Amino acid sequence: TNPIFTGMPTTIFEKMSALARETGAINLGQGFPDVDGPEEIRAKAAEVALAGPNQYPSMMGIPELRQAVAAANRRFYGLDIDWQSEVLVTSGATEALADAIFGLVAPGDEVIVIEPFYDSYVPIIRQAGGTPVFVRITPPGWEIDVEALARAFSPRTKAIIINDPMNPAGKVFSHGELQAIADLCLEHDAYVIADEVYEHLTFDGLKHETLMAFPGMRDRVVRIGSAGKTFSLTGWKIGYVTAAPNLLGPVSKAHQFVTFTTPPNLQAAVAHGLAMPDSYFETLASEQARKRDRLSAGLRAAGFEVMACQGTYFVTTDTGPLGLDDDAEACMRLTREAGVVAVPVSAFYAGSAPTRFIRFCFCKRDEVLDAAVDRLAKWL
Amino acid sequence: TNPIFTGMPTTIFEKMSALARETGAINLGQGFPDVDGPEEIRAKAAEVALAGPNQYPSMMGIPELRQAVAAANRRFYGLDIDWQSEVLVTSGATEALADAIFGLVAPGDEVIVIEPFYDSYVPIIRQAGGTPVFVRITPPGWEIDVEALARAFSPRTKAIIINDPMNPAGKVFSHGELQAIADLCLEHDAYVIADEVYEHLTFDGLKHETLMAFPGMRDRVVRIGSAGKTFSLTGWKIGYVTAAPNLLGPVSKAHQFVTFTTPPNLQAAVAHGLAMPDSYFETLASEQARKRDRLSAGLRAAGFEVMACQGTYFVTTDTGPLGLDDDAEACMRLTREAGVVAVPVSAFYAGSAPTRFIRFCFCKRDEVLDAAVDRLAKWL
Ligand SMILES: CSCCC(=O)C(=O)O
Ligand SMILES: CSCCC(=O)C(=O)O
Repeated sequence: TNPIFTGMPTTIFEKMSALARETGAINLGQGFPDVDGPEEIRAKAAEVALAGPNQYPSMMGIPELRQAVAAANRRFYGLDIDWQSEVLVTSGATEALADAIFGLVAPGDEVIVIEPFYDSYVPIIRQAGGTPVFVRITPPGWEIDVEALARAFSPRTKAIIINDPMNPAGKVFSHGELQAIADLCLEHDAYVIADEVYEHLTFDGLKHETLMAFPGMRDRVVRIGSAGKTFSLTGWKIGYVTAAPNLLGPVSKAHQFVTFTTPPNLQAAVAHGLAMPDSYFETLASEQARKRDRLSAGLRAAGFEVMACQGTYFVTTDTGPLGLDDDAEACMRLTREAGVVAVPVSAFYAGSAPTRFIRFCFCKRDEVLDAAVDRLAKWL
Repeated sequence: TNPIFTGMPTTIFEKMSALARETGAINLGQGFPDVDGPEEIRAKAAEVALAGPNQYPSMMGIPELRQAVAAANRRFYGLDIDWQSEVLVTSGATEALADAIFGLVAPGDEVIVIEPFYDSYVPIIRQAGGTPVFVRITPPGWEIDVEALARAFSPRTKAIIINDPMNPAGKVFSHGELQAIADLCLEHDAYVIADEVYEHLTFDGLKHETLMAFPGMRDRVVRIGSAGKTFSLTGWKIGYVTAAPNLLGPVSKAHQFVTFTTPPNLQAAVAHGLAMPDSYFETLASEQARKRDRLSAGLRAAGFEVMACQGTYFVTTDTGPLGLDDDAEACMRLTREAGVVAVPVSAFYAGSAPTRFIRFCFCKRDEVLDAAVDRLAKWL
C-alpha cells in the first residue's frame, strides 16, 4: 500500500463527526451548518434531477455554472474572466485542491504551506512528488511574518497555498500581507493556490480580497471557491477553479482523471445561487457574525479564552488558562464528559504543534450553540 | 507543471462530445444514455435535495447506500459484505479507480493493465509511482492469452486492473479466464482492481461474475461499481467500492484527500435504486441488448463489419474492409462528413495501437440509432 496516504490518520473532521454520532454529543467540530441553504437553490437541484439532464456534462462544468462563476468574479472582485478557458467545476474544493496541486507540482518542486493548514494539502503535495515547506503563524494574532515567509522561498518554490479566510485561525489576510505575498511570488516566479472557500464569510466590515486581483498576479493564481460554504450546502461538493488558461489547462488535465465531471443538477442549482442578489451574501455573513458573537460570548462566560475571528465558520479558544494543555485529550474529554465535540487545532500542523488551542464551529442554530455553552459551563 | 498529467491529451470522451456539440453531429461517442434512468430514483434525489440532509455525510458514504451496496453484493454475487468496514462511496467510478490505485500502489510497484483500457488508469498509476505493464488482447475475439498474461507478472506486480465487462471490447470475461487471473494473483500475491461499472450490462444470457467471489480472492479484490451505468444516470457520479478491510482502509485514506465525500441526496437515491426488483436489472440489460442488435444490424446493412458484443454500451467495427485504416482520421471524417460521432479505439492503447477499429455507443433512443445509421449509409 501507498505510504503517503496510508501513513495519514483518518481526517480529524470525520473522526470527530463520527464521535459525535456515536456519543450523541453536540457537534461543533467539523465545519457545516445545521440549517440547509436557500430553498430556491435546493428547488433548482430537485427540478433538474427530475427533468434532466442527468448525463455526463462537459468535464469543465456546465456552461451556466462556468458563466456564473465568471460573473461572480467580476461582481465581487472586478475580475474579467473568460468562462470557457478560465473556469473549471470540480467535485468539491478538496478535489479542486488535489487537481491544482497535481496539475502544477512536479517532482522536486517545493510548495509553501502556512501552518495551521487543511489536512489534504500535504499528502497531495507529497503524492505529486513535491516537498512542503512550512511557515508557521501563531495565535492570538496569526500575523504573517514576512521575513520568515521570504526565507521559505527558494529557487525550487513552485507555489504557495494560501487559505484566506483562513481555517482554523479565523483570519482574513490584510491587504498588506497579500501584497507581500504577491511581491514574493513575483520575485520568485511562484504560483498561488488560493483556497478561498470562505470568501463570503468575512465579518465586521472586512472584505475578502483575492490575490488574483493584485497587479501582476492575474495569471499566477489558481483561485478555488466552494458552493458548500457559500450556500450552506456542504454535502453538495461543488467547487470551482478560476485561473488563467496557462494554469487552468494543467489543473483540468488532473481533473479529467481524478473525477472527470460533477453532477449537473447540483451545478445548475449552484449557478442559480451565484446569481442571487447581494443581500443574500450580506445576510449570510451577518448571520454568521451574529452566531460567532453568540458562541464567543457564551464560551467566555463559561470561562474560555476566545480568540478574535474575522471570518470562516470557526472560533478558537486558548485552553492554557484552563489547565487543558493537550488539545487532543481535551477534545476527547469535552466529548465524553461535557457532551460537546470540538476540533484540536494541533491537527492542522505538520509537527510539534501548539496544543493549547481548540476550534469550535459556530454555524449552528442558536439553541444548539446555547445548549453547547450550557454543557461546557457546567463541565468547567 | 506536472509532466504526468499535462503530458496527456484531453480525454477522448470529452473531445468527441465537445465535437458533437460543436458540429451538431449525432453523438455515439462517449458512453451515456439519452434517456435518464428511473423516475423513482430521480424523485428520491429531488426529495432529499429539498428536505435535506444536504451537509457533509460520512466520508465513507451514507449508511443506507453502504447497506444497499452490501445487499447488492449478496443478491447478485452471493457475497457476504460488512457494510461498515467493506464499502466506500465515491464521486464516481473514476474517483474510485484513482483512490484504489493511490491507496494500493507504491513507488516501484508494477500494475498489469490489459489493452485496450480506460484512459485514467495509466496516468494515475504513474502518479502513484507505479509502472504499468501492458498485456494486449485483440479483436475480433478479445481472448485473454493466459501465457502472455502469466509472463506479465513479476515479483514487483502489486495489482492487475480488470475491466469486466470490458470497454471498448464489449467483452465479458469467461469463468475460465477469471479463474486463470485468480490463479495468477494468488500465485504472485497480487491484488485485483476490478472495474465492474458495466456489471449489469451483459447480454444473451451471459452473467457477469466478479473475481471477488472466486476462492481465495475475497480479500484481494477491490470491486468498483457505478450508479451512472447501472441506473442510466451517468452525470450523477456515484461510484462504490467493495473490498475487505485490509484493502478498503488504504483506498479510503486516498479518498479522504481526493474528494472527501459525495452528495447525500444522490447517494440516497442510488440506495433506493439498488433495492429495485430484479425486473429492473433484467429490463435494463434486455433493452440494451435490443439496442445493440438494432445498431449492429443497421451498421452491417450500411457496410460496416461489426464485431460481437457481450456487454457494455458499445459495439466496435472493423473499418479495415472499408479502407478506413486510421481510426482517428476516420472518426473526424465521420463527424464532419457523415454527422455521426464515434470513438477511435486506438485511444484505448498505450502505444502502436491497432487503427482499424471504431467504437459506437448504442444506449440511445431507437430513432437516434436509426438516424445515425441512415447518415452513415448515405456517407458510405
Ligand atoms: C471536508 S471536512 C471539513 C473541512 C472543514 O470544513 C472543517 O475544517 O471542518
Ligand atoms: C468518463 S467518460 C466516459 C467513459 C465511458 O463511459 C466511455 O468509455 O465512453
